[in-house]
Amino acid sequence: MLQVAEMMQKFGFTTTKIPVDHEGFINLEKLKEAVDNETILVSVSAVNNEIGTVQPIKEAVDIVKAKNPQALFHTDASDAYGRIPFNVQNLNVDLATVSSYKIQGPRGMGAMYLREGINFERILEGQIGTQKLWPGVENTPLIVGFTKASELAFQNFDANVVKMRMLRDKLVDGIFSELDDLRFNGPKGDKRSPDNANVSILRAEGEALTIELSLKGVYVSSGSACSRRLLQPSHVLVAIGRRFSEAHGSILMKTTRYLTEEDIAYVLEVLPTAVNRIRGIVGSTGVD
Amino acid sequence: MLQVAEMMQKFGFTTTKIPVDHEGFINLEKLKEAVDNETILVSVSAVNNEIGTVQPIKEAVDIVKAKNPQALFHTDASDAYGRIPFNVQNLNVDLATVSSYKIQGPRGMGAMYLREGINFERILEGQIGTQKLWPGVENTPLIVGFTKASELAFQNFDANVVKMRMLRDKLVDGIFSELDDLRFNGPKGDKRSPDNANVSILRAEGEALTIELSLKGVYVSSGSACSRRLLQPSHVLVAIGRRFSEAHGSILMKTTRYLTEEDIAYVLEVLPTAVNRIRGIVGSTGVD
Repeated sequence: MLQVAEMMQKFGFTTTKIPVDHEGFINLEKLKEAVDNETILVSVSAVNNEIGTVQPIKEAVDIVKAKNPQALFHTDASDAYGRIPFNVQNLNVDLATVSSYKIQGPRGMGAMYLREGINFERILEGQIGTQKLWPGVENTPLIVGFTKASELAFQNFDANVVKMRMLRDKLVDGIFSELDDLRFNGPKGDKRSPDNANVSILRAEGEALTIELSLKGVYVSSGSACSRRLLQPSHVLVAIGRRFSEAHGSILMKTTRYLTEEDIAYVLEVLPTAVNRIRGIVGSTGVD
Repeated sequence: MLQVAEMMQKFGFTTTKIPVDHEGFINLEKLKEAVDNETILVSVSAVNNEIGTVQPIKEAVDIVKAKNPQALFHTDASDAYGRIPFNVQNLNVDLATVSSYKIQGPRGMGAMYLREGINFERILEGQIGTQKLWPGVENTPLIVGFTKASELAFQNFDANVVKMRMLRDKLVDGIFSELDDLRFNGPKGDKRSPDNANVSILRAEGEALTIELSLKGVYVSSGSACSRRLLQPSHVLVAIGRRFSEAHGSILMKTTRYLTEEDIAYVLEVLPTAVNRIRGIVGSTGVD
């Protein structure tokens, strides 16, 4: 979204970034101040993809609509879909987007909810077939795959959520009991997505850890600058006030309905060993 | 491409459409006249997707570069890839695009050849990962699938081409020996893609034929206005001078390396029956 906002700025639109608190929650007061009668669109992710913060979307929509009923409200619900109860009608959003691969569906497919009556123009041109918003022939295999993944995610929604949360909690508790010098990133409890774990492991560079773990079949992401194309640490971790060294050693892990307790036990076996090895090699506390 | 040209026009660019002859070949004289020192981009499909016309890309590139060496030349080679010999270096094009599903690879994937040193900006914004020209996480399954499809298309290229041509010729000869009041659309011989058959079946509406054949497991496209979202007949057939009634009853069929002689025999069994049934129902010669 940040990149899209920057692009819109190049086109001459004015954009405003709303700050977040130390757990990643949007500042609703600042949102209220920012909306005026020239506001066209407000976009807030329903769940932050890095630290799992469940945003107060309903409250945000009410604030925006009270100040400017014409302003459209969009939420990227990719990290909410299949993880928290989410209902476009109850939330009163105008637009919502979800992504297939985030619920273990095929990559390259997503869906957009568009409130009836909203006028919309496609951003890409080409031969228009049965789809109005995207050129080309509709991708039937990916559509069917995404539909099936949605079915699987929602037919046992409650059980899936309980399982993701239980496995995530075991994972986080295990890491904190095995290692010291850690920071837990993002909120705890109900206001965090049940699948999300994000931990800064001080004195262990995230990129090195990512690679070492991948050799053991464990795949994590890192907020380390070294893992990122632009060599900037995670803007999310920076926004919640993490220092460079904390972002540098951060890893992001997500549980799914397909993981087992054995999988978590295996991660808890290899992760501390990898961290201790990397910490031993570096042998320094990092520089802020 | 037409829609993209129209979009560029909205953005303030001037665009020129180069006419084609009755077989769909681009008019090189008109191309020469159209290129001037303000020309930024010329785009010509290597093979027309509806009537299989193999365009003289090398000649077109030479003409464009002679008049304006700075003008970029793009060719959409989606219908050439895996069907005719095609070499970006020999043709001296600056940009070439191909599509996975056109060689029986997965849908939703393609590739672009970009001559080294050409400055390029992406048209969509979002999080940039390992790809510079398209936001988001690269789609590994589709990339692998497309690569495998390319391998299969090219490891027996000559044999595949011979097979596609032989099956296509059997199909066309069979249709012409079984039915009358037909028009063959596009060129014959080496200047036609080996997989492409396009026949106008007068007094048989293409949309009805498409549906009737699909019930028998035979999938064809039609240039009929009724098959098209905008209720306009195929602009390709119109451009080569076909009348409305001719476009209306046109069907497009393509052979692949996976089809067999039995498949063609089956099509030749069900197609004339379907045509005669539809012609009998309509019982008119159509109106121009």
